[in-house]
Amino acid sequence: MEVEGILNSAAESYPMNGGDGPHSYTNNSAPQRRLIEASKELIIEAIEEKLEIDSSSCVNGSKAFGIADLGCSVGNNTFIAVHNIIEAVEKKKAKKNDESNSSSLLEFQVFFNDHSNNDFNSLFRSLPYNDSSRSYYAAAVAGSFYGRLFPNSTLHFVNCSFALHWMSKLPKQILDRNSSAWNGNRIHYTSSSNAKVHEAYADEYKNGMKCFLKARAQEIVGGGLMLIVVPAIPTNSNDMSQIPQAFSYGLLESSFSEMVNLGYISEEKVETFNVPHYFPTSKELEAIIKRNGNFSIEIMEILSRKMKFIKSSVEIVVGTMRAAMEELFRQHFGNEVLPHLFQSYTKKVEENLDILDLKFSQHEDLFLILKRKIN
Amino acid sequence: MEVEGILNSAAESYPMNGGDGPHSYTNNSAPQRRLIEASKELIIEAIEEKLEIDSSSCVNGSKAFGIADLGCSVGNNTFIAVHNIIEAVEKKKAKKNDESNSSSLLEFQVFFNDHSNNDFNSLFRSLPYNDSSRSYYAAAVAGSFYGRLFPNSTLHFVNCSFALHWMSKLPKQILDRNSSAWNGNRIHYTSSSNAKVHEAYADEYKNGMKCFLKARAQEIVGGGLMLIVVPAIPTNSNDMSQIPQAFSYGLLESSFSEMVNLGYISEEKVETFNVPHYFPTSKELEAIIKRNGNFSIEIMEILSRKMKFIKSSVEIVVGTMRAAMEELFRQHFGNEVLPHLFQSYTKKVEENLDILDLKFSQHEDLFLILKRKIN
Repeated sequence: MEVEGILNSAAESYPMNGGDGPHSYTNNSAPQRRLIEASKELIIEAIEEKLEIDSSSCVNGSKAFGIADLGCSVGNNTFIAVHNIIEAVEKKKAKKNDESNSSSLLEFQVFFNDHSNNDFNSLFRSLPYNDSSRSYYAAAVAGSFYGRLFPNSTLHFVNCSFALHWMSKLPKQILDRNSSAWNGNRIHYTSSSNAKVHEAYADEYKNGMKCFLKARAQEIVGGGLMLIVVPAIPTNSNDMSQIPQAFSYGLLESSFSEMVNLGYISEEKVETFNVPHYFPTSKELEAIIKRNGNFSIEIMEILSRKMKFIKSSVEIVVGTMRAAMEELFRQHFGNEVLPHLFQSYTKKVEENLDILDLKFSQHEDLFLILKRKIN
Repeated sequence: MEVEGILNSAAESYPMNGGDGPHSYTNNSAPQRRLIEASKELIIEAIEEKLEIDSSSCVNGSKAFGIADLGCSVGNNTFIAVHNIIEAVEKKKAKKNDESNSSSLLEFQVFFNDHSNNDFNSLFRSLPYNDSSRSYYAAAVAGSFYGRLFPNSTLHFVNCSFALHWMSKLPKQILDRNSSAWNGNRIHYTSSSNAKVHEAYADEYKNGMKCFLKARAQEIVGGGLMLIVVPAIPTNSNDMSQIPQAFSYGLLESSFSEMVNLGYISEEKVETFNVPHYFPTSKELEAIIKRNGNFSIEIMEILSRKMKFIKSSVEIVVGTMRAAMEELFRQHFGNEVLPHLFQSYTKKVEENLDILDLKFSQHEDLFLILKRKIN
């Protein structure tokens, strides 16, 4: 037997910063945590109303309720997300038990997934072992979620939050000087005025999502749910250069250009660097999901509209970016230039905090609940 | 729901050396690898003749064939062991398919388990990702196998080789000056002449094995198998001081005593140190398994009798010991004394290599195949 998609080493991999140091994801992921908190009510609602598992298949030793957190990284966010899901499933189960006057027990098995160079040691060591709040069997699964990670029909709820904007790889054309989609010294499509660059990113994103949905359709049982939270581009944004992301990448670009001028990095290094992030519109995502055909979209909301906007600080803006993207910079530019880069970027954030805040206030995160259709 | 045994942080934990450096378990586990090779034929035989899984429950997407390697450590040994198991199950399946003229496919999910301070990052990074020989979905599970690790009835084959001699904890009495089981400056029961010490170790071992078997009985499906390989004490050994282990621990004790004389460590440090290893006789193990009642003993053999004896080298003796026990020494004596300790021990091994070889040639490893009874 050969397991389809297991050999997925082609996917690029830039894990969040591990450990629990000052630049770790653990200590620099408060904005993501706020989104998890904001989505709690929606998750409870989705599980209560949309989850359609034949519970007899998950009780009394026949099968555990399988949960996967894809792109879990390290730290507490993933534990909080999983805790919220389990709480909601147990609530639903208790209600059902009351109605049927039964007391069948549910066991949970949670799979924490990320790339194989994620810091799983930190993840395991920070699992709430001594805390009775951990009421599940934990396992870790290493590998790209753009390939198969689990056997057929073994998952009942999948969470993939703040992870799917990391593309499986960059489109080749944007690095090709001879291509009309060459991105030159821009580092992202949102900060580029070349529509061909956007097109190349969009096509590559579609390819990745096709693999992602195909794999999940095999792994999730019929009636099971998948929660997706992705930073998105507001549907009505006609001018890409005005969206929040464009401004952030623009600041980074000016830091890079400064470093080229100071001789820290070559122009060629910048020209061969692009950020493998993609932010779909809700329409775009909807079309991709419909094309796959195995999932129904049960809920689709703009999460940020449910949240009170909080003004940023330079520390949070730089800290969050650094925890998430340092490894990407390191792999391309090397370790030595990182201090200069973050110093320069910090200065730019300081100078532009008001505009950044205005931009962030327009930022949108899509919250989706998909249900695996029952064959 | 509270998962029984999940809160098993009380179990002591001394992982094998991680990474792939000169003292790593990866590069110092050749003797264990020879045992894996020696057990291959027995595993094929056991799976062919003893495994009694209703294969319809494992095919066509209904359930994956679950394999767990308990105490997997890092490195290649665990991958080889798992590969052998899968090869044997697939062979059996192919035969069945031929007989029934069907072509149902089997999916495998392998859980690599060890303590949460095991180096899982190394394990994941050394998984054969780019090798078509890996035909399974891999997951890691952190925690002591003396508690529950998996949901009910989710495993079909469990391997626990060269791991069960690590006790869940030391018996308290041996550290108590006022107890008749105080072990003084001895570091193990095999090198002690006090029968009370042996008794205390044996009782603690029984307690641990009781928890181990209780947990596995819940996790393994009826008809599923468990392979156990443990270094054992030959049944007819009347004089404990003559068994191979006694001699090795004796050498270590003389190294410790040398270090006390040189002022590197205090006498009290040695008096409070004991090695949490237990080597049962086959009779002892048999009685413990029968008392649990959930498993039948299908195969019980002395593995070492199936192997050609190979003379040791100082490098291998010291390297294997260091990779497996360095962390235990570090936690008790601190990092600084380790170079002195291994230097002294190396000298003693050099002086005694012939006796060690004679002793090793008498060493016995028990190979057991247990079958989970079908309720």
